[in-house]
Amino acid sequence: MKDNQIPKATAKRLPLYYRYLRLLNDAGKKKVSSTELSEAVQVDSATIRRDFSYFGELGKRGYGYDVKDLMHFFAKTLNDDQMTNVALVGVGNLGSALLKYKFHQSNSIRVSAAFDVNPEIVGRIVDGIPVYPMSDMKEQISIQQIDIAILTVPAERSQDVVNDLVAAGIKGILNFTPTRITAPADVLVQNVDLTTELQTLIYFLHSGGIIPEEN
Amino acid sequence: MKDNQIPKATAKRLPLYYRYLRLLNDAGKKKVSSTELSEAVQVDSATIRRDFSYFGELGKRGYGYDVKDLMHFFAKTLNDDQMTNVALVGVGNLGSALLKYKFHQSNSIRVSAAFDVNPEIVGRIVDGIPVYPMSDMKEQISIQQIDIAILTVPAERSQDVVNDLVAAGIKGILNFTPTRITAPADVLVQNVDLTTELQTLIYFLHSGGIIPEEN
Repeated sequence: MKDNQIPKATAKRLPLYYRYLRLLNDAGKKKVSSTELSEAVQVDSATIRRDFSYFGELGKRGYGYDVKDLMHFFAKTLNDDQMTNVALVGVGNLGSALLKYKFHQSNSIRVSAAFDVNPEIVGRIVDGIPVYPMSDMKEQISIQQIDIAILTVPAERSQDVVNDLVAAGIKGILNFTPTRITAPADVLVQNVDLTTELQTLIYFLHSGGIIPEEN
Repeated sequence: MKDNQIPKATAKRLPLYYRYLRLLNDAGKKKVSSTELSEAVQVDSATIRRDFSYFGELGKRGYGYDVKDLMHFFAKTLNDDQMTNVALVGVGNLGSALLKYKFHQSNSIRVSAAFDVNPEIVGRIVDGIPVYPMSDMKEQISIQQIDIAILTVPAERSQDVVNDLVAAGIKGILNFTPTRITAPADVLVQNVDLTTELQTLIYFLHSGGIIPEEN
């Protein structure tokens, strides 16, 4: 098990494998071949084998994978057997949409608090999630044992809010702002930049190519 | 110039480089060193040099980069000198938020049409963008010369809508649904899965690691 060194692209495919294994398991399927898995998740077999190789022996050659075993393995690897509380900061257009987003009905991810500066939004309950004022952020993050924050504030506010989140003990930030925020080394930042996603697609479209699988 | 073979992770960093070069140029800066660029975009220098090497000589060793030259190079590479019309299909919570999303005030990306099945939404103008019924999709995509579609429909509708988009002549799809949609080889699909982004962050958090830069 070399958990700490797996490539990011592999890590991003693990939730995909896990989701399909859950679907197969719900459908009562016991075994899955690497070809079937490859077609379902649309990742080539060689990439799947390489991804799985980071975790040692997950199946027998020519036999396929045991659906339940592999599903449990990924559940544990992805910490889907533990609840993760998440906060969202910035209840604007995108923030509101994310509060209503179902995150695939995951049973292990719960957005439990939102924060905003706007007095017209503070105090509301959006899709079951209370919106607190920014002044309550530190206290609520501590009380609710929240490790992860989704950042959907305006770009010019992002670094100040990150500093406050770090001071409040947040360990991971999913950054939807276009700013490249800075945080201490022990706070993980995952950037989701919607403009970049669109520009990358346009780039590949005009370079006449295919979109390569990430390594 | 090996446009067709650059890795996806490199392609995803090009918009980031381009954005900072525009900021530097707006600020009247003429030269930027690879160290300054590295700190600004938070990508290590070795990765930046490797990314740039796919495009031949972009700067002189020990001299840094000419801001304007490099900015123009990336503008051309990213087709930011041409207008790209984009459609959005599925004006639900996320779709509405994306219609209002500014895509960094890009001058070259214009979301010019939205489509939905809901008669209460069809006919409205959301943030300047008209919402058409699905039955007008093929016609509008053709008239407006739209190449790219943002897909924010419910998961169970996604493949049918993709089939209609392909029939209408769409060349690239930014897929926000959790479904792994299938499309002909000449139609590019870029998946943005918000649950996967969050699960990847949780994975790296619990594996006690750092998030590696993508290669």
